[in-house]
Amino acid sequence: MLPGTHWMGLEQWARLKQGEDCCLCADIHLDVNEFSFRVAELEWSYVRLARNQYRRGWTLVALKRHACELFELTDSESDGSWREVAAVARALDHLYQPAEINYGVFGNLNPHIHCHLVPQFFSDDPMLPLNMQAEDVRLDDQDYQRTIHALRQALGRRD
Amino acid sequence: MLPGTHWMGLEQWARLKQGEDCCLCADIHLDVNEFSFRVAELEWSYVRLARNQYRRGWTLVALKRHACELFELTDSESDGSWREVAAVARALDHLYQPAEINYGVFGNLNPHIHCHLVPQFFSDDPMLPLNMQAEDVRLDDQDYQRTIHALRQALGRRD
Repeated sequence: MLPGTHWMGLEQWARLKQGEDCCLCADIHLDVNEFSFRVAELEWSYVRLARNQYRRGWTLVALKRHACELFELTDSESDGSWREVAAVARALDHLYQPAEINYGVFGNLNPHIHCHLVPQFFSDDPMLPLNMQAEDVRLDDQDYQRTIHALRQALGRRD
Repeated sequence: MLPGTHWMGLEQWARLKQGEDCCLCADIHLDVNEFSFRVAELEWSYVRLARNQYRRGWTLVALKRHACELFELTDSESDGSWREVAAVARALDHLYQPAEINYGVFGNLNPHIHCHLVPQFFSDDPMLPLNMQAEDVRLDDQDYQRTIHALRQALGRRD
């Protein structure tokens, strides 16, 4: 396998890491995009519900500004955005009462910091790796709207 | 599949989440444990090199005190521990110059917050999920020591 074969070529990858033609920069703020629905705009990040709900409650917290690695963030950005991830996790925990929540910042395909929050249920096998491509389960529109509404309410709770 | 079958029973899991008989609390500070080597003690966390180096540079940043979910952390703990994760990522980036770094807080088996930092190289397939059990590659003692030393040096850099 040639270096760069799967990473669109070294130069293009380097440009993408710098934010050039970044898909997330282009659509992370939209009410609806190809992959997710906007749930809330927070100070540092957007909260989005993944269209693919094969893992129930799968939610994304995406940094508003382009950055690729955690060490590119200022202290304020790091502090603020991780507190926002924690607030979303609290909301998911309230809504779904899972066994556990998984948090993943990957970005192999889209190197713009976004954290996947994936509730793990007692009916899930904890030995399986977190594979975002394992299945593709879509809800009907009403179910998406119900889930987004519940998540907004849970995010607004003060307890 | 019965609820709890894979999660050691609901009550035992709940106790473990609270920190009772937590394996990480017991061995996260040791120079050497079954899974990793201590690289550095930071203010909020321990930095550890995974014994399994099938992903080159695989490093853990484990919270010193027991907590299971990100929303259990105080603001100071969240701010401090994520800045430490970022510092370790910067060191890994300096040492390995990967295409990207993956960050994962899972804890399905050990619900004590620890972040896996896994460099992704141009020779890796970015479509593959992060599967910590895919392979088990051990180094010889000299290679572990060399890697730990390099990581310590990179962590101590001021640039």
